Amino acid sequence: MVKLPEIFNRYYPYIEEELKSLFDNRNLFLYDMMRYHLGWINNRGDNISNNSGKKLRATLCLLACESLDGDFRKALPLAAAIELIHNYSLVHDDIQDDDKQRRHRPTVWSIWGKPQAINAGSALKVLASLSVAKLGDYNISSDKQVEVFEILNNSCLKMIEGQFLDINFENRSDITIENYLEMIEKKTSALIEGALKIGAVLNIEKSKLEPFEKFGRYLGLAFQIRDDILGIWGNNTKTGKPQGNDIRKRKKTLPIVFCLQVSNKKIKERLLKIYSKKRISERNIGYILSLLNDIGSKRFCEEKSIEYYQLALKEIKNLPIFSDKVSHFKEISRFLIKRDF
Amino acid sequence: MVKLPEIFNRYYPYIEEELKSLFDNRNLFLYDMMRYHLGWINNRGDNISNNSGKKLRATLCLLACESLDGDFRKALPLAAAIELIHNYSLVHDDIQDDDKQRRHRPTVWSIWGKPQAINAGSALKVLASLSVAKLGDYNISSDKQVEVFEILNNSCLKMIEGQFLDINFENRSDITIENYLEMIEKKTSALIEGALKIGAVLNIEKSKLEPFEKFGRYLGLAFQIRDDILGIWGNNTKTGKPQGNDIRKRKKTLPIVFCLQVSNKKIKERLLKIYSKKRISERNIGYILSLLNDIGSKRFCEEKSIEYYQLALKEIKNLPIFSDKVSHFKEISRFLIKRDF
Repeated sequence: MVKLPEIFNRYYPYIEEELKSLFDNRNLFLYDMMRYHLGWINNRGDNISNNSGKKLRATLCLLACESLDGDFRKALPLAAAIELIHNYSLVHDDIQDDDKQRRHRPTVWSIWGKPQAINAGSALKVLASLSVAKLGDYNISSDKQVEVFEILNNSCLKMIEGQFLDINFENRSDITIENYLEMIEKKTSALIEGALKIGAVLNIEKSKLEPFEKFGRYLGLAFQIRDDILGIWGNNTKTGKPQGNDIRKRKKTLPIVFCLQVSNKKIKERLLKIYSKKRISERNIGYILSLLNDIGSKRFCEEKSIEYYQLALKEIKNLPIFSDKVSHFKEISRFLIKRDF
Repeated sequence: MVKLPEIFNRYYPYIEEELKSLFDNRNLFLYDMMRYHLGWINNRGDNISNNSGKKLRATLCLLACESLDGDFRKALPLAAAIELIHNYSLVHDDIQDDDKQRRHRPTVWSIWGKPQAINAGSALKVLASLSVAKLGDYNISSDKQVEVFEILNNSCLKMIEGQFLDINFENRSDITIENYLEMIEKKTSALIEGALKIGAVLNIEKSKLEPFEKFGRYLGLAFQIRDDILGIWGNNTKTGKPQGNDIRKRKKTLPIVFCLQVSNKKIKERLLKIYSKKRISERNIGYILSLLNDIGSKRFCEEKSIEYYQLALKEIKNLPIFSDKVSHFKEISRFLIKRDF
């Protein structure tokens, strides 16, 4: 078992407090749907012990800021913002994918219906923008705020483009590994890049953000491919995903895309036929798992993930950060490709 | 027939040009769904002659700016932004309401499915934020940009709250006229207030926006109630709405809320029973129309709409604008309560 790096635990309570402050005096039930999604209450409105994810993006944002001038607090409104954007995307993703479960709990739409879940997701995104406006309280200049807005919205647009491509790929049989990597670079890396860049830009000029962007890109790719691996071969209580889960949901993640690219026509057609069914039987899932095993799909994905991990490590050397913070960036990178949750 | 005030035609080409500039070099099909919604192309991607609404909110934004210093051009990025936010809300509304038609054309979701339509709507919202960032090109200070961002996102959040309440009301039988007015003040007025305020704030201090906000609130209420009237009694080719259309869609608009509030228990129960059906028959629509007629529902709504129109007119006197622009505000107000499209 790989443990969550200590830095996550250090920032966590600050992030939660900042997030919760955005919900002060917001009494409409709309906000309770968001509180539910964020893991603060159950669907009857009772407070529950927290269940709201690792906060990877917020952590990266705070670390990027702290590693440049020793202070992370002024980046808290941005950490909250990036976390809310991530969560808005999850609420909408669950609607789009018809997913009934997330983090072992019923999804927002499965309780309150898709129309209201669309509103809850959209409102999370707007709260994120309003959080950025709180930078003024930390004496961050308006010029910097404008820079943050632009980075954040460009990241967000890229993420939506990625989500568009992901859904678009569902109905296509000609997706190459290259297409796939391009898609996850948008869908997953964009927001991780954005998290690092907005944290860093509070302390350095925006023309100097490139190493943070590159590091974020590689980290996002490694992270997503690890996610793809866990989505098929992960089988533990933490992710809550049974083996073959992404196959069950007919997701064309990297292990499947690899299979489609390297298999012969007959196997490819059989795979696509199974994927075209409304429901995939457990027998078919077993068939696909053995197929992926035969062609070494898991190994290919692991190697690809390590490839990006190594690129990320290399990029850490180019970050203009305090040397005592380097280990945090390394630890997080290592965790993301080793994690089983 | 009431004619569209001349000021709409004057601004229209500038707004369109500004909007289109935001789509330059955006080649992903995601953007074509948005271009389709904005009335620029058909669903095969061919350019079509324009069919994209009056641009009320963009027009109000430009007018607010021009009426304070004689120049509307610097507000163009904001006019585009507010129009995009309005259109994002329409794309999502159509999904939420299961509406297959908008402006005589199939809705985005009805062609490309709800998952991708959610993406198209969300991306319109992000493009709106990126449009605000273009204010820098007009030498608008970062301080002003931050003010605009805050106004815009607060308006947007209020609009989503209104949309939440609107959907929430569908399953409730106890909606009062007061509840209803509160809902449309959020759902409709918020964005109209926002349009005026962001246009005005380029030229005046944000502490001086109150008359614009009030004018926008009353105008929005008058506008929405006129919309409710047209939704039931409108019957012309411009709105594309047949008589009783909102009844057909089981919408609880003001004429129905009034009916529920003033009718006796028996009639109220009958009305709610009809509204609880999956499909409302033409006979039932006829029954409800005659019911509304008997209790004077149309007249009540018309009076209410005129009441807000008069409050709006009164508020125009408090706007700190050039006197030669007053007539435009009056004309627009008059148009909005007289229009039959």
